Amino acid sequence: MTPELATATEAQADFAAEVFAQLRAATADVQGVTRESYGPGEEAAHALMAQTARTLGLEVTHDAAMNTYMTWPGRDRTAPVRMVGSHLDSVPKGGNYDGAAGVVSGLTAIRALQSMGIEPPTDITVMGIRAEESCWFGVSYIGSRGALGTLPPDAFETAARADSGRSLASHLAECGGDPERLQEGPPHLEAARIGAFFEPHIEQGPVLVEEGFPCGIVTGIRGNRRFPNARCLGEYAHCGGAPRRVRRDAVVAAAAFVQALDRLWDEAEAASEDFACTIGKFSTDADRHAMTIISGEVQFSVDVRSVEPRVLARLESQLPGMAAEIGHKHQVQLALGPMTRAAPGVMAPPLVAQYRAAAVAMNISTMDIASGASHDSAAFADAGVPTAMLFIRNEHGSHNPDEAMTIPDFIEATKLLTATLAG
Amino acid sequence: MTPELATATEAQADFAAEVFAQLRAATADVQGVTRESYGPGEEAAHALMAQTARTLGLEVTHDAAMNTYMTWPGRDRTAPVRMVGSHLDSVPKGGNYDGAAGVVSGLTAIRALQSMGIEPPTDITVMGIRAEESCWFGVSYIGSRGALGTLPPDAFETAARADSGRSLASHLAECGGDPERLQEGPPHLEAARIGAFFEPHIEQGPVLVEEGFPCGIVTGIRGNRRFPNARCLGEYAHCGGAPRRVRRDAVVAAAAFVQALDRLWDEAEAASEDFACTIGKFSTDADRHAMTIISGEVQFSVDVRSVEPRVLARLESQLPGMAAEIGHKHQVQLALGPMTRAAPGVMAPPLVAQYRAAAVAMNISTMDIASGASHDSAAFADAGVPTAMLFIRNEHGSHNPDEAMTIPDFIEATKLLTATLAG
Repeated sequence: MTPELATATEAQADFAAEVFAQLRAATADVQGVTRESYGPGEEAAHALMAQTARTLGLEVTHDAAMNTYMTWPGRDRTAPVRMVGSHLDSVPKGGNYDGAAGVVSGLTAIRALQSMGIEPPTDITVMGIRAEESCWFGVSYIGSRGALGTLPPDAFETAARADSGRSLASHLAECGGDPERLQEGPPHLEAARIGAFFEPHIEQGPVLVEEGFPCGIVTGIRGNRRFPNARCLGEYAHCGGAPRRVRRDAVVAAAAFVQALDRLWDEAEAASEDFACTIGKFSTDADRHAMTIISGEVQFSVDVRSVEPRVLARLESQLPGMAAEIGHKHQVQLALGPMTRAAPGVMAPPLVAQYRAAAVAMNISTMDIASGASHDSAAFADAGVPTAMLFIRNEHGSHNPDEAMTIPDFIEATKLLTATLAG
Repeated sequence: MTPELATATEAQADFAAEVFAQLRAATADVQGVTRESYGPGEEAAHALMAQTARTLGLEVTHDAAMNTYMTWPGRDRTAPVRMVGSHLDSVPKGGNYDGAAGVVSGLTAIRALQSMGIEPPTDITVMGIRAEESCWFGVSYIGSRGALGTLPPDAFETAARADSGRSLASHLAECGGDPERLQEGPPHLEAARIGAFFEPHIEQGPVLVEEGFPCGIVTGIRGNRRFPNARCLGEYAHCGGAPRRVRRDAVVAAAAFVQALDRLWDEAEAASEDFACTIGKFSTDADRHAMTIISGEVQFSVDVRSVEPRVLARLESQLPGMAAEIGHKHQVQLALGPMTRAAPGVMAPPLVAQYRAAAVAMNISTMDIASGASHDSAAFADAGVPTAMLFIRNEHGSHNPDEAMTIPDFIEATKLLTATLAG
């Protein structure tokens, strides 16, 4: 049946292109598109997806977070549902595909299956998710965590939208949502009742473009260990009088630590381990630093990421010792300070295997790719839902008007989804 | 005659201790001493030195900068004068010896020579120098450069004292000086008429304490190359989406540059070259940096120092290329920006040789030591005056009330001066 699934999906190219065109038109800004979380742009996107779903005969419902559920009923409506979803909000003046591609892919796959006269064994639900972009409320995964019951209850009142200054509760209510029910009621989605969560998403980095693959199978969403307030404390001293051996130079020591982190990255690459490290902040004290004064203090941040829990565990035990050793060598106190943890989003091996099998059967060349950025899938995986992600090739990165996913690449990825949902 | 010179100098220990005690009493602050440049503390110090000099029969005069000249007439009054001098101002709540020790040493050496009935072949002038500490007017060597005619004329009106806010011209006039004459008249000192300038000074670092020498013979005053506004320009990017090979991380690149400078220091040490490097400022942009954003910009400063002109020349030609190479490797623009130069203060080999010979003859153990900090001697050397410095052992650094030079160490250094002036 594989050739037929491929052909049926390819026949949806015009449909998908038309939906994307309508979506762009409905949410256009002076540049790119703007779909504010719980604002007019996001509302328009949800309305358009619901309208499109109805033309496919899907049942359209909403939860208290105003996520949109578009369900193709299966033969056994009591069996665990299989879901395809992603978010429909965007950053201000963003691109047309970040998030939305996953929803359109779900609808496209269903339309392909319908065109073949297939009746699904279980319900297949396409979920248009609310408020994933943290730029609006400073909180991520509001829609997915709201549906799963894992959103911190205080977020509704404490989170304010960056543009309006008004609370999440206020914006949610304005869109027809029910903040009270989200805080007090049972979650709309029960993880045990979800057989699978699939999220196709454009790649936000350049890897697929550079490597020449139309799509990639995500191996995991990186977890992290973060040290937001690391400090290196040395001693301020005039650079003229202090000979090298008595210097306690915070800049030299902290720079050595940055280099040591970079070498850990080299080692991880050599061992084919997933790894990324970012020192986003690194500053001497503007009130005390001077060109001719040895700096007595550097404040910096550290974010290390990996899809591999054992890499994160190793870093967690390794970094404080590394900091102490470098501190000792440079006669400074190199204190990493409080650490926060985020577990990696683990992809479900059976679902990943289904994608891989489909790629082989359909002769679609894919590569394995780790997701460095966060996605709603992490909220589903974290809740215990078997989860898998596909990345679709996309030029110029995301979060800008120049996102450039092509419909042929979108169709290649969607073919994998169609084949997987056909089972 | 060497043993007699040593004994005669040792006999001045009580004299020197008494002068230091009077000086401390006359300029005491709630902690330490305060001798404001062209203020009451400095005035009191000059008055005390002049009064002391008169008891030794010296001629006391002043120039338009109100430096104090205390001259022991020589047999040939037309021969080039030999000078001993240092500054009599201090930082706020500073120590009793920084600067003053050089003036007291000159008077002490003269008193020792007088006690032996020696008649000097040339005039020997002890110079109490004004306004060396740049903390007061933001300008260094005001007194010595004012006397030598090398002070920028605009300093008199543009430089304002940090505590009063009033101009240098105003403070100078208040102390009896003549700013107009300093700006328009011929310099009071003519470099060609000065045979030698000797400046004993406490060491401001811990080297002599740690190495166990009462005094050191200064090999040179470090010059420098400075890059006050170096910048590393990369590209801001979310740390999740950007794989390592496309990162343009300004922090990692600038840290690599810091490490490369540190390796240059290793190499210079291995080659026994004088070298010091300070990155006093190193900061990501507080308006844009974030823990999860790859930093697109670092601003930093670089100060490299050496007593050796060839080391400075090499660095000047080497650093831009090193920055470019590291920038290229990390895909950033590493621009050092405008550079300033200060030439090393070169010590006159014959004078250094005289000190060394005296040390051997008097069995005083000394070490060679580079001056990392700046001194009036640099202004004299720069003007072409044969110059030599001695450092006197001193605990706890300088510019603080805890300076701890001992009288026996002061006498050891002064013995070298006595022997040198005896010739």
